[in-house]
Amino acid sequence: MSTQLRLGIAGLGTVGTGTVKIIQRHASVLKARTGREITISAVSARNRDKDRGVRLGDYAWENDPVAQAQRDDVDVFVELIGGEDGPAKAAVEAAVAAGKDVVTANKALLAIHGQALAEAAEAAGVTIRYEAAVAGGIPVIKALTEGLAGNQVSRVMGVMNGTCNYMLTRMQNDGLAYDEVFAECEKLGYLEADPTLDVGGIDAGHKLTILTALAFGTRVDFDALTIEGIERITAEDIEQAADMGYRIKLLGVARQSGRGLEARMTPCLVPVESPLGQLEGATNMVVLEGDSVGQIVLRGAGAGEGPTASAVMADVCDIARGIRLPVFGQPAKTLAAARAGNAESPTAYYVRMSLYDKPGALARIASVMGDAGISIDRMRQYGHSSETAPVLIVTHKAARDALDSALKAMSGTGVLASEPVALRIEDV
Amino acid sequence: MSTQLRLGIAGLGTVGTGTVKIIQRHASVLKARTGREITISAVSARNRDKDRGVRLGDYAWENDPVAQAQRDDVDVFVELIGGEDGPAKAAVEAAVAAGKDVVTANKALLAIHGQALAEAAEAAGVTIRYEAAVAGGIPVIKALTEGLAGNQVSRVMGVMNGTCNYMLTRMQNDGLAYDEVFAECEKLGYLEADPTLDVGGIDAGHKLTILTALAFGTRVDFDALTIEGIERITAEDIEQAADMGYRIKLLGVARQSGRGLEARMTPCLVPVESPLGQLEGATNMVVLEGDSVGQIVLRGAGAGEGPTASAVMADVCDIARGIRLPVFGQPAKTLAAARAGNAESPTAYYVRMSLYDKPGALARIASVMGDAGISIDRMRQYGHSSETAPVLIVTHKAARDALDSALKAMSGTGVLASEPVALRIEDV
Repeated sequence: MSTQLRLGIAGLGTVGTGTVKIIQRHASVLKARTGREITISAVSARNRDKDRGVRLGDYAWENDPVAQAQRDDVDVFVELIGGEDGPAKAAVEAAVAAGKDVVTANKALLAIHGQALAEAAEAAGVTIRYEAAVAGGIPVIKALTEGLAGNQVSRVMGVMNGTCNYMLTRMQNDGLAYDEVFAECEKLGYLEADPTLDVGGIDAGHKLTILTALAFGTRVDFDALTIEGIERITAEDIEQAADMGYRIKLLGVARQSGRGLEARMTPCLVPVESPLGQLEGATNMVVLEGDSVGQIVLRGAGAGEGPTASAVMADVCDIARGIRLPVFGQPAKTLAAARAGNAESPTAYYVRMSLYDKPGALARIASVMGDAGISIDRMRQYGHSSETAPVLIVTHKAARDALDSALKAMSGTGVLASEPVALRIEDV
Repeated sequence: MSTQLRLGIAGLGTVGTGTVKIIQRHASVLKARTGREITISAVSARNRDKDRGVRLGDYAWENDPVAQAQRDDVDVFVELIGGEDGPAKAAVEAAVAAGKDVVTANKALLAIHGQALAEAAEAAGVTIRYEAAVAGGIPVIKALTEGLAGNQVSRVMGVMNGTCNYMLTRMQNDGLAYDEVFAECEKLGYLEADPTLDVGGIDAGHKLTILTALAFGTRVDFDALTIEGIERITAEDIEQAADMGYRIKLLGVARQSGRGLEARMTPCLVPVESPLGQLEGATNMVVLEGDSVGQIVLRGAGAGEGPTASAVMADVCDIARGIRLPVFGQPAKTLAAARAGNAESPTAYYVRMSLYDKPGALARIASVMGDAGISIDRMRQYGHSSETAPVLIVTHKAARDALDSALKAMSGTGVLASEPVALRIEDV
């Protein structure tokens, strides 16, 4: 093992710049911990002239990340460009083909192309590490793959998009409407260029796809994920859920059961006093459950320069220390295909609806639920001034099929003023 | 690397039995993850005849753990005997001398003899792993040593004795006195044979000693730790702290600052709405703070068969996968001596006292505080029926020296009916 570990850092946004800063600031402590000098040979970014507030003059500049990945003086290619295709993918593939280890923060790349990349890396005898791709600074990949290696994992849950959790928290604490908070986040630069990545649950879905593969020994399969964003959540939902003792979170849940593998990134209700219910603002939280360990909760910053660069450096230090695992914890060729179908396990549901204020309306709804075999735990009708009355139902545990037929039957009653909203209440 | 990894498991209490169960139950998944068959060659315990509810007939039985550690068919010696000296220490030393890797859950052994053991292990080219020694199933050793390897750690905090947190929670939620809860825990078997290990903060102190070494690159130094147990905490303290917005926790805090290294395991007040404040029952929580990552919170079961065995197996899997680090994250010979002295950083304090109910008593106390340069944030006198009045003070940030002279001066006033209790309010 040579004494130096030489990096090529591609992408000098906040995470790339943060990574450079750590290497410059902590050279001696990194050497004490890893036994090797961690250096930067070359950097690349779209714009060379931008002032990034960090010294870059000692490093070779590359315009082309693919050429950078192939440099003789690069041992580890650090991909911080982002995007599931384009230069990020080309450069990672080039690095693997050239026999370089890769560290990346690119959740989309791994969620979509992870299986092919892992197979290529393992064939080439290199590794691809991606602690920074999921939940920022929280070392969740390591906790799951190594810390829980003796467990059969039963469930993984997570709030992994800080912007969505910030938005829901703002709506909850300040009674703001979705559109108001969305506009605020847009103004503050909290949203991706394509905001659907955030509010549509796609970014968080990429992360859950990766955790699912690690937890259950299956191939990444982003298409198998059920995704629903937070766009339909109203301030009333949040207020009424609170009234029932719940918070609404954009919650990823992956579960292995007799029904097969189930993976969802959807708005869910969780008890207000649970760790997930207590989570406010942009902080991330991941909950891991295993047959021996029980429940482990990890909480921390899910984004930002420092936390994400911290995760990049954890991977770099692992490589420097000679820690080498298969990309998804076990050889890629041994990963099982995720079982087709995505049957939801039975759960309690929160159903919000708006009823025309006429005699017997509530009774009609209750009877439709009963006919579908769904038993009602709690039901509330709220005061109203218009011709329609907001009604809330919390069901006992029910199958999704049963709920769907109840929702369908409700449409036929003529008492609904608009389409009902149904959200899972996750048992946490 | 041979395909088998052969264990010798010494100690068949709950953790040892739990470890055997995982190896029997998950043989194939462990092989898929590590690429090696994990087997047990020999077991040992004090009592051979006890029914432990697990098949042991396939394994050689050893009466002497030292002989077991030296067996040719043992690659990894798993020490689950416990105790800082005696057979546990002798057997671990024998294993190291015989060139075997060691996995242990023994916090006392490491907190007291960790430096010598680490030096011996590194000289012999073997490793000693101890994820199970701190906070049970929570992979905190791994999070700190590997997950935060790119950080300068500024503070580590933890609630790491489940029994103490259970006791404080019972006192808080059910208004019970310390003695009542202590008796209950004794009856339920929640306490160590020597209960001082729990309620005196020693067990948790051992754990903090290990985390401190890992966080700050210093030698384990149990004697440098300030320890205070929960024996003096009353139901009134808990109630009055709650009245001020705090919970009382037996909290470990290690901090590196300009004043040097500071490590304490003492009852502290934390805000009721903080993650530490929300922690109830026997659950453990560790908070890690680094210059890049910010604050990471880890929560999970700190004891019990499954969680602790899960941590033992994480270490076994790491060794099977070829993950080998120096015992304390960097070579033992490079660890610094912890700087002598243990100056407490300034903090707000909670001071409880009992004053004789006579005119001017409260004014005397307030003036003594002022003379010592301590400024009072909040002061409350509670209603009383006896001749003494309970008085509570929350100070602004003050140096420990100043507080100590104030406490001393108070004794001279003649208005104190008993010795005052002062607890840190930790900024979390």
